[in-house]
Amino acid sequence: MMRSIYPKFATHNAHTLSAINYLGENKNYEFQRLFGMGELLYKCAENVLNDQHHTSIYAPIGQYKDLLPYLVRRLLENGANSSFINRLLDPDTDAKWLAAGPDKKIENERKDIPLPCNIFTNRKNSKGLDISEMDNLDTIKTEISKFKNQSVNAVSIYQNRADDGSKKHDIFSLADGVCIGSVCYDNHTLIKESLEAKTDLNWPKVDVKQRAQILQAISNELESNPYQLIYYLMHEAGKTIQNSIDEIREAVDFLRYYSNQMIELEERDGKLDGPTGEENILTYGPKGHIVCISPWNFPVAILIGQISAALITGNKVTLKPSEHTSILGFLVVNIFHKNGVPVDALELILGDGLYGDLLSKLNNINGIAFTGSLQTAKKIQTNLNDSQKEILPLIAETGGINAMIVDSSALLEQATDDIVRSAFDSAGQRCSALRVLCIQDDIYDDLLEMIKGNMRELKIGNPEKLDTDIGPIINQTAKDKLEAYITTKSKAGFAIYQSSLDSMEQHISPTIIEIGSLNDLKEEQFGPILHVLKFKSSEIDNLIQDINNTGYGLTIGIHTRIESRADAFSQRCNIGNVYINRDIVGAVVGSQPFGGRGLSGSGFKAGGPNYLIQFLNEKVVSKNSVAFGGNAELLNIQED
Amino acid sequence: MMRSIYPKFATHNAHTLSAINYLGENKNYEFQRLFGMGELLYKCAENVLNDQHHTSIYAPIGQYKDLLPYLVRRLLENGANSSFINRLLDPDTDAKWLAAGPDKKIENERKDIPLPCNIFTNRKNSKGLDISEMDNLDTIKTEISKFKNQSVNAVSIYQNRADDGSKKHDIFSLADGVCIGSVCYDNHTLIKESLEAKTDLNWPKVDVKQRAQILQAISNELESNPYQLIYYLMHEAGKTIQNSIDEIREAVDFLRYYSNQMIELEERDGKLDGPTGEENILTYGPKGHIVCISPWNFPVAILIGQISAALITGNKVTLKPSEHTSILGFLVVNIFHKNGVPVDALELILGDGLYGDLLSKLNNINGIAFTGSLQTAKKIQTNLNDSQKEILPLIAETGGINAMIVDSSALLEQATDDIVRSAFDSAGQRCSALRVLCIQDDIYDDLLEMIKGNMRELKIGNPEKLDTDIGPIINQTAKDKLEAYITTKSKAGFAIYQSSLDSMEQHISPTIIEIGSLNDLKEEQFGPILHVLKFKSSEIDNLIQDINNTGYGLTIGIHTRIESRADAFSQRCNIGNVYINRDIVGAVVGSQPFGGRGLSGSGFKAGGPNYLIQFLNEKVVSKNSVAFGGNAELLNIQED
Repeated sequence: MMRSIYPKFATHNAHTLSAINYLGENKNYEFQRLFGMGELLYKCAENVLNDQHHTSIYAPIGQYKDLLPYLVRRLLENGANSSFINRLLDPDTDAKWLAAGPDKKIENERKDIPLPCNIFTNRKNSKGLDISEMDNLDTIKTEISKFKNQSVNAVSIYQNRADDGSKKHDIFSLADGVCIGSVCYDNHTLIKESLEAKTDLNWPKVDVKQRAQILQAISNELESNPYQLIYYLMHEAGKTIQNSIDEIREAVDFLRYYSNQMIELEERDGKLDGPTGEENILTYGPKGHIVCISPWNFPVAILIGQISAALITGNKVTLKPSEHTSILGFLVVNIFHKNGVPVDALELILGDGLYGDLLSKLNNINGIAFTGSLQTAKKIQTNLNDSQKEILPLIAETGGINAMIVDSSALLEQATDDIVRSAFDSAGQRCSALRVLCIQDDIYDDLLEMIKGNMRELKIGNPEKLDTDIGPIINQTAKDKLEAYITTKSKAGFAIYQSSLDSMEQHISPTIIEIGSLNDLKEEQFGPILHVLKFKSSEIDNLIQDINNTGYGLTIGIHTRIESRADAFSQRCNIGNVYINRDIVGAVVGSQPFGGRGLSGSGFKAGGPNYLIQFLNEKVVSKNSVAFGGNAELLNIQED
Repeated sequence: MMRSIYPKFATHNAHTLSAINYLGENKNYEFQRLFGMGELLYKCAENVLNDQHHTSIYAPIGQYKDLLPYLVRRLLENGANSSFINRLLDPDTDAKWLAAGPDKKIENERKDIPLPCNIFTNRKNSKGLDISEMDNLDTIKTEISKFKNQSVNAVSIYQNRADDGSKKHDIFSLADGVCIGSVCYDNHTLIKESLEAKTDLNWPKVDVKQRAQILQAISNELESNPYQLIYYLMHEAGKTIQNSIDEIREAVDFLRYYSNQMIELEERDGKLDGPTGEENILTYGPKGHIVCISPWNFPVAILIGQISAALITGNKVTLKPSEHTSILGFLVVNIFHKNGVPVDALELILGDGLYGDLLSKLNNINGIAFTGSLQTAKKIQTNLNDSQKEILPLIAETGGINAMIVDSSALLEQATDDIVRSAFDSAGQRCSALRVLCIQDDIYDDLLEMIKGNMRELKIGNPEKLDTDIGPIINQTAKDKLEAYITTKSKAGFAIYQSSLDSMEQHISPTIIEIGSLNDLKEEQFGPILHVLKFKSSEIDNLIQDINNTGYGLTIGIHTRIESRADAFSQRCNIGNVYINRDIVGAVVGSQPFGGRGLSGSGFKAGGPNYLIQFLNEKVVSKNSVAFGGNAELLNIQED
């Protein structure tokens, strides 16, 4: 290496300098120090360094906007308690202590910094697979290749199911077009009869800890052997490999988060205040029978989030996955059954929207958890209203017209990365994805140019390929709808930019549409289409109000270096998840409980402290404790 | 007194004996002791007692069922740590300590027994008015007489209301038939225009503590000056004086409970776990605009429960009280406004059901809290579904077909009192009231006879009179419906018993209808009608299932001395509020959070820990804390 590279080490740290001197004995290199800094250090170091190591002096040159963040970071670093320079200048610091090896000191510090697996107080964090590590990549390649040429014939799973000869639908890969299996849609009448039959269910009576153990076992299986699901996430759902890995992690997190949370809830003391002579206890029990209708865009994570919450709380679950990801639904339910969830506690119904209608009209359900479009949510609400005698809860997570505001103080390089990821990752097929970017006019042209540059670097294509950034649109109908939208906007005279126009069969190129007003947006476009809006500095305060007025309230991003402005906007926006100086997708269970309000959904946030209670009934038992013969509480008061 | 009464004091307690001897010097009386007990005591006492005080010996005589509870109580008393006899027989007990005055000892014990005002950890208990105290009664009489011959003209209260000449409806007293005021129903179009107009509301921005202070001030006003409301509870709602007092107490409790709970919620640390370098905070904010539709049967307590929960959480409230208690709604809202709740944060709309329809279709509401019939709740749900773009929460508290099970081990005297109160108090016009009493056949005749005897003692009449137990039915329509039901059942051959057949104009006599099966009950009868069902000992385990199968799930009572049976039934029943060995009405805020499931309602229990959150939106703010220049968390780790 030393023959082709001549290294220069820029440091003002005596440890670094000594280490390099030690490691680099007889090697050819030089040191660097910043103009005006480190003079004393290098003067002292002359005694140690051999003459052959030159020290060059450098000075950063650039514009104010580039220099400022650099200087701020240096100030923070040098000012920090743990900084070598801070300690060096402190006369109370013992020189021997300062000179000690940093590897010794780090041992102490590490106690304060939890390992990644331990950052959550109530659960083990899910394991990531770093695909920049060659070993990991090789393992994944080998493991998923085993599922190539296999075929999964997905069928519904419920008590007394009979193969009624219903037609099987073939399913083709979104990656390579090959047939990857089939799905069978059962006869409605048979499903209804079976699902409405009275059964004596054991699941609600199973101890919470035992239910939790089953869910934990499922999470461990997903973590240690995620490859079949990764394969079908790529082929049935068209996910990139990174998205597939992230999705499994989220599922693992849901399983662990909810099962630990339910144990905590169960162990909570339910005793309520009251007068002596009576005992009042609040407990929680399952609602009964929950229908989960899950989406194709997170066919593993959201599906598992819904059913694990409903199951851990002791409910019977009937699950209908999206018809676009029937195989994944089938595979997940099999894993649940294999690990001990009884079939009568978790039924799987495969089919299209008509099957969702059927389930929402069953005469023995107690609630629905749904993630999907607002339109479908309203349809389900109508079904519930028309066919159910009771007022049943509908936990609906619908879409959003998610905005991001970037003011002139933002760091454009960082904003660009966050914008592109928020808008185009997963081909924009996330509820949380960025739909409208609001840029302050002062930086509008610069930022848009940087975004376009970044978009040009995105690799659009086969999700199976490791270098693919953006995969396909879920199906032809969705693709047609998005293309028609772009065409309409184009014909209406809106400026449109697409990073690559040679669109592949199942893909939409990342698209920017410049708009003049938020009123130009009427509904969510569920794909890689980013609207961009220019605003004047003086208009920024009205912008939040305009965003609130869309009626949606799922995610919002704010990029600014003015912390008070970030806080004020966070406060004022009528949005469920607010992200400051970062992307607005990829909410982590427990860290970013996820869910919106208004047109974006009803119910409490998934992966948050209030989600489980939606699947539970409260019960208060009030006992006249005197009736059994006397007030033991009073009679047994201890005298001093 | 001593001339006409000859007292006999039955005691085995040396303190009591000494006290009577001291207080009764030169008086004529005698002591008693139980056959076989207290011999030593009285032998020793001979030295102290003068000869003139005879000691007679008595022995209780009676049946096993009467003797058993007596013996159990004696055993518990004597076995208790604090019992004189327990301590006397303990050789380690210091005789001097034992002989010390109990008034001294009680000082210590009292520390362990909180005063009634302090039994709740998070609030001051509401003050009761004991109407068996002559002083209290005189005060009430004097105070409420001031409102006689006054007239309250109730009008809606909202921004820009104009008197549009709408017709005033006179309101007549349910107690004495006199006109007590009027109510004006405003024009629908004007209400809609005003209520949908955009306003800049300050209430959500008011500090939680300040909002809490206002609600606390209202609770103090209600407690110290409840008389006008008591007067109109009697005259407009037909409540007895005791029911009126209890209702004000419940309102006071709601105000204090919710305001303290909201302060606790606000002060909770919202920081969520996550990786270093980002900050995730969960906060709660108002949903926005809540419509409260409150019932006539608790026109002060439930109304205040709804609006105080919605207000303390920072929401704007539009309230429609039942048209049968418009004056009470008007008076309550005036108290809220007087104490600092702004008019634009609490609007009052007076009118009938059509006004409820109007409010549920407003284009700027974010949820509805409703208490009333299931039929109306379904109507509201339809309105929400048809007219709102979003999925809005409907917190509905509807009725129940509430049962009580009395097995052969129950103490019949106690059960009788609890049954009569549960079924007939407030003329059965409580959601929680007992509708079907299930009696084990072994005690069926005995218990029914005792209930009938108790019913004959009930005084039915003018609620203004202090000796009235049961007041009128709320209006003629309701009365007609109940009478028609009784007639139908009578014609169908069901055995019917009514305690008094000379029914007054606005009253229904407490009625018992003997039925053969729970299937004979199809819907709630909201009045003083108690269905009675006989069951065999062998059928008791199916009974809970039958009750669950009604689909209602509000309250249930269990009277048994078999504690394991009480616990098993509590567990198995699909009911919100379970009462063991007591009546099933009069739930206390905080002690008996109240609300049902299934056909009995949706949402979390009123007066419980999960009620407030229904009026709140969750928000998670995720901040990339490194973006402002570095990870201060890591940089500032303290080295040892």
